[in-house]
Amino acid sequence: MNKLLDMYRVGILGATGVVGGELISVLSDRNFPLSELFLYASERSVGKSIDTVLGRIEVQHVDNIDYSNLDFVFNAIGGDWPKDNLLKAKNSNCVIIDNSSTFRYDSSIPLIIPEINADKIGNNKLIANPNCTTAIVAIPLYLIEQKYGIKNIIISTYQAASGAGNGAMEELMEGTKNYFENKDYTNKIFSHPLPFNLIPQIDTFQSNGYTREEMKVVWELRKIFSNENLNISCTCVRVPTLRAHSESVTVETINPIDPEIFRQELDSVKGVRVCDDIAKKLYPMPITATKSYDVEVGRIRQNLIFKDYGIDFFVSGDQLLKGAALNAVQIAEYIIANKNRI
Amino acid sequence: MNKLLDMYRVGILGATGVVGGELISVLSDRNFPLSELFLYASERSVGKSIDTVLGRIEVQHVDNIDYSNLDFVFNAIGGDWPKDNLLKAKNSNCVIIDNSSTFRYDSSIPLIIPEINADKIGNNKLIANPNCTTAIVAIPLYLIEQKYGIKNIIISTYQAASGAGNGAMEELMEGTKNYFENKDYTNKIFSHPLPFNLIPQIDTFQSNGYTREEMKVVWELRKIFSNENLNISCTCVRVPTLRAHSESVTVETINPIDPEIFRQELDSVKGVRVCDDIAKKLYPMPITATKSYDVEVGRIRQNLIFKDYGIDFFVSGDQLLKGAALNAVQIAEYIIANKNRI
Repeated sequence: MNKLLDMYRVGILGATGVVGGELISVLSDRNFPLSELFLYASERSVGKSIDTVLGRIEVQHVDNIDYSNLDFVFNAIGGDWPKDNLLKAKNSNCVIIDNSSTFRYDSSIPLIIPEINADKIGNNKLIANPNCTTAIVAIPLYLIEQKYGIKNIIISTYQAASGAGNGAMEELMEGTKNYFENKDYTNKIFSHPLPFNLIPQIDTFQSNGYTREEMKVVWELRKIFSNENLNISCTCVRVPTLRAHSESVTVETINPIDPEIFRQELDSVKGVRVCDDIAKKLYPMPITATKSYDVEVGRIRQNLIFKDYGIDFFVSGDQLLKGAALNAVQIAEYIIANKNRI
Repeated sequence: MNKLLDMYRVGILGATGVVGGELISVLSDRNFPLSELFLYASERSVGKSIDTVLGRIEVQHVDNIDYSNLDFVFNAIGGDWPKDNLLKAKNSNCVIIDNSSTFRYDSSIPLIIPEINADKIGNNKLIANPNCTTAIVAIPLYLIEQKYGIKNIIISTYQAASGAGNGAMEELMEGTKNYFENKDYTNKIFSHPLPFNLIPQIDTFQSNGYTREEMKVVWELRKIFSNENLNISCTCVRVPTLRAHSESVTVETINPIDPEIFRQELDSVKGVRVCDDIAKKLYPMPITATKSYDVEVGRIRQNLIFKDYGIDFFVSGDQLLKGAALNAVQIAEYIIANKNRI
């Protein structure tokens, strides 16, 4: 790292995708100490130019990346690419923060939400960023885990189109528009039409009948909380919203929990905004959570079944920010703030 | 009743509303033995004409109703009207099937889903029809209650705009259209804009932090199952779909439950269509459940937390049919089929 100037050379892989675009704006918005910014993408986007805080930058082919010339790399390319390519940086000094799911379940690679387990970053040069659905719900759940102990968590999600990328959001927009124009519409990205519909499948099915998206929440919360026995079950549903995921959450606790005290405790937690004034019809919603760094938490109430030992709440969070780009940048910020310790 | 001819004189109250319209078509579609059909509504709809299976019928003022001239009345008027007016039929022979929530929680009035508790109809002249969210999920839950015993039920709903009436569906359509035309849009029926959004509030808030819609599911399932101790908790969310409600359901059972056996058992239950072939991406969805009499049930799997003692599933059902008009007509059909017993 260029410790002398406290400025850093950053590369974004997958810069033309929806998360790549958010990474570019989050770095700018948070005044990330950038000395240089390099944008990379696959073949079809090479040569495009993108406006950034450091001016207009041309997108280069991802194969041309030189890790030894970079301090931080944010990867937003998915599929098989990370497995085959990110480890090539091994012998450089570059820190890679990977938004793909490739290394999340590898016990040798930390999976980080800075508000929860930044202490696990250590000297690692490859750090995994959690799935959006996990990241959005993790902070309120961790508060419960620490203060009350968790017996069981049951989650049902309401996930926006953009969770499946820019093309998916466009497919929802185009399909909805066609509906009003009586035009034909064929779904390509989603397995069924999403306009005015729900699709109770995100990612592929596993042998236990859950989808991979549902199991990601289980696998990732266990790893982030360092609790292999955490009991969680999740149902993931795609809904016709553009941006910001929501989740309906029921938690059975080990010790008694009071909604009013929990609300006050949450209020002082970083990364969360309590939106919970039912008299004013104030609760988390995608349109208010969109483009917000904080995750909205509301509808906090004592669970009817578990009484003193149960709490219900609803979260809405921008899955492209805390659920992706923001969390990744926060990991880099933490490393910079603690660089003397590295 | 006109038992001689086996034909019946029917009145529909609130005939110009969304449920009233469905009642008219369900009666026709199921060849309900109608000798005469009378349509009633409030002042502003008087004089309108509606096409029915018995020809074009003019809408009369609801105050003009003569219960002694009718065999069955289906009420789809809500608010204070039923409380002040429906009991006036007391001394007639007319059977009133009330779709409003007015009498549902009155222990002297039966609340009926014919597949579950038709035996509670008896000689009652006023019968309550359950709330849509209750009706859609009740049949699969009742199978579990009977075969395995229920310890706890946790539900999160995904409710369509039309659950709030014709005007609400139009508000979603208009708001969505305006979005594409960059026109201003003000929500009037919903407390927040619904296009590309979610609203985690349906009906008013209760002192326990739950909404009335959420508590209806609790109160009604307990009454329909004749089990005052049934443990249920529910979170109700309005989603930008037009028609058919969906629900994500987790059930902890008293005895072990096997998903494969439960799927087979459900398959032979009336009122349910098992849509559960994940290899073919077949699961319940609003666009396939819309205008279907059967409620779709799928995503059936052993719950990760409760293992042998837990099951998860997803339902989509037309809240205007099984959730309203169909169930009401089925109650009348049951009474007719069992008239010799009355």
